[in-house]
Amino acid sequence: MSDRPLLVQDLGEHGLLERLQRYCPPGIVGDDGAIIPIVADRSLTVTTDVLVEGVHFSDRTTSPFDVGWRAATANLSDLAAMGATPLGIVVGLSLPGTTPVSWVEEVYRGLYECLQLYQTPIVGGDICRSSVITLAITAFGTLMPERAICRNLAKPQDAIVITGYHGLSRGGLELLLSREGDTDLTPAERNKLIQAHQRPVPRLDVLLYLDWFPEKAIAGMDSSDGLADAVIQICRASGVGAVIDCSQIPVDSGLSQLATPARVWDWIFYGGEDFELVLCLAPELAESLVEQIEGAAIIGHIVAEPQIEVVGYDNSSSIQILNIGKGFQHF
Amino acid sequence: MSDRPLLVQDLGEHGLLERLQRYCPPGIVGDDGAIIPIVADRSLTVTTDVLVEGVHFSDRTTSPFDVGWRAATANLSDLAAMGATPLGIVVGLSLPGTTPVSWVEEVYRGLYECLQLYQTPIVGGDICRSSVITLAITAFGTLMPERAICRNLAKPQDAIVITGYHGLSRGGLELLLSREGDTDLTPAERNKLIQAHQRPVPRLDVLLYLDWFPEKAIAGMDSSDGLADAVIQICRASGVGAVIDCSQIPVDSGLSQLATPARVWDWIFYGGEDFELVLCLAPELAESLVEQIEGAAIIGHIVAEPQIEVVGYDNSSSIQILNIGKGFQHF
Repeated sequence: MSDRPLLVQDLGEHGLLERLQRYCPPGIVGDDGAIIPIVADRSLTVTTDVLVEGVHFSDRTTSPFDVGWRAATANLSDLAAMGATPLGIVVGLSLPGTTPVSWVEEVYRGLYECLQLYQTPIVGGDICRSSVITLAITAFGTLMPERAICRNLAKPQDAIVITGYHGLSRGGLELLLSREGDTDLTPAERNKLIQAHQRPVPRLDVLLYLDWFPEKAIAGMDSSDGLADAVIQICRASGVGAVIDCSQIPVDSGLSQLATPARVWDWIFYGGEDFELVLCLAPELAESLVEQIEGAAIIGHIVAEPQIEVVGYDNSSSIQILNIGKGFQHF
Repeated sequence: MSDRPLLVQDLGEHGLLERLQRYCPPGIVGDDGAIIPIVADRSLTVTTDVLVEGVHFSDRTTSPFDVGWRAATANLSDLAAMGATPLGIVVGLSLPGTTPVSWVEEVYRGLYECLQLYQTPIVGGDICRSSVITLAITAFGTLMPERAICRNLAKPQDAIVITGYHGLSRGGLELLLSREGDTDLTPAERNKLIQAHQRPVPRLDVLLYLDWFPEKAIAGMDSSDGLADAVIQICRASGVGAVIDCSQIPVDSGLSQLATPARVWDWIFYGGEDFELVLCLAPELAESLVEQIEGAAIIGHIVAEPQIEVVGYDNSSSIQILNIGKGFQHF
């Protein structure tokens, strides 16, 4: 037995966040964004993300422009995952004094160019000295409370929809880390994967389709920490389980040439940073939704039993049980 | 001539922020918080602050509880400086995996205890790995747009009000860094200064008095970066100047025993982290306000000529001109 105090790395990110929930009001934390009532029919939603040099980005695979772009996407994606319309973001930047000004300007230009696509302004920030570049972004938006997309709203029989391909960002990273010419991919296939990694886009466009739906609760979150993580989080929060049919998950043709099927499936489930939405909704709405969105698919359904079965994973006929421990953790 | 690129340290914090303003909508950045309209009579205000270990806090002078407390105060103070009622905060924390969990919990407890005083919840956060502990906090609140306290609203003839003593936090730091028994201060005097450094409070209480005022524009900001900085920023933003009469600035009795008058005045003007409000308003309103607030004072008035004269600084009869370069910069 050691007297060593309990360290952050012993708990991991999720464990630590769970412990800190005692300082937060019950029910408000645990989704992609918090929902705070402002006036009767309008709530505020807020989400925050911290990016650290060497952990979330490196000069080798990400230009400062792309650091900014990806940070904007990650935050707007959290708003999309709540069903919220963005209002603005604030940026907290800490960095060494020896950082070139052009580097900082490129990060801001990346943020700006991505945010512009969604008419979202940068409304403030703070800058201070540090030995490590850290970018803390908080995004906020508004939503009608009865239309909030929450993790805890999934019900048995709901169809599980993904709004696009998974694993592309992880595949793009692989290409960037490998030598040029190592693969047989066409320039278009190659470019698609690299774009997915460097310039992902938030799925705020999906909300436009949901706007037309009758007011039925839609559960969901984004797949920024991986498709598996999203399904697990939704099932956990809703106290339900899921059956996922891999034969229904679209696999990008370029991606499947990059690695063995086992690795490709690993990237699809655990790669992360694809920033698609994973939604659980009534089957008839799900069908109408996937018809309208290129690349979207119904990949399974929610069941009462709190267990997640994955059928046809790794192209085998066996049934796998998703393991929550494998989601991306920052420690 | 060198080919060295322009570095962040060449511009300093203010210079860099100025350069980055091109990526922000005109008029929205530059106050303690941004103001974003939501519905007709209610706007959102958002403010963000980044605290870095070794720059803003160190284990020698600040317990983790106080790191949290001070961070909460700094952000609530920015909301107070906008005239806003707090809604909540989000916390972005990056830290080494070897940080004791108890350290993190103490920071959160400090945040929580301070926020509780103002019924403000922690509504979300992000945690990730880094080699340096960094705490990025974003606070948001609501206000009635016509009652927003902005830096650019000061007019000639306005009285300049401070809501309390200055230099106390800097004096408290001095005491913490010196050996016990180095001074002749009474325990009460000593405690007052140390409390000011470790447990400052935001002046949200001042807003209750302003609520009763007729709807006249009030200019102002908080003195978190020093009293001099606040006066300079308000004058700059409003295109006006000021005359400050040092004989009207209350000087704490304990503080004046700690150092030479020159140093004490330096702490009062440039010490920072006192988290008082510096307000510019019609003289009759100013008088009514200072009557109601213990420690508040009218310390001067706004003039048209864009220059800041300080009369009686350092107890001398000379007139000093405030120098914008001396405000606290993080680089």
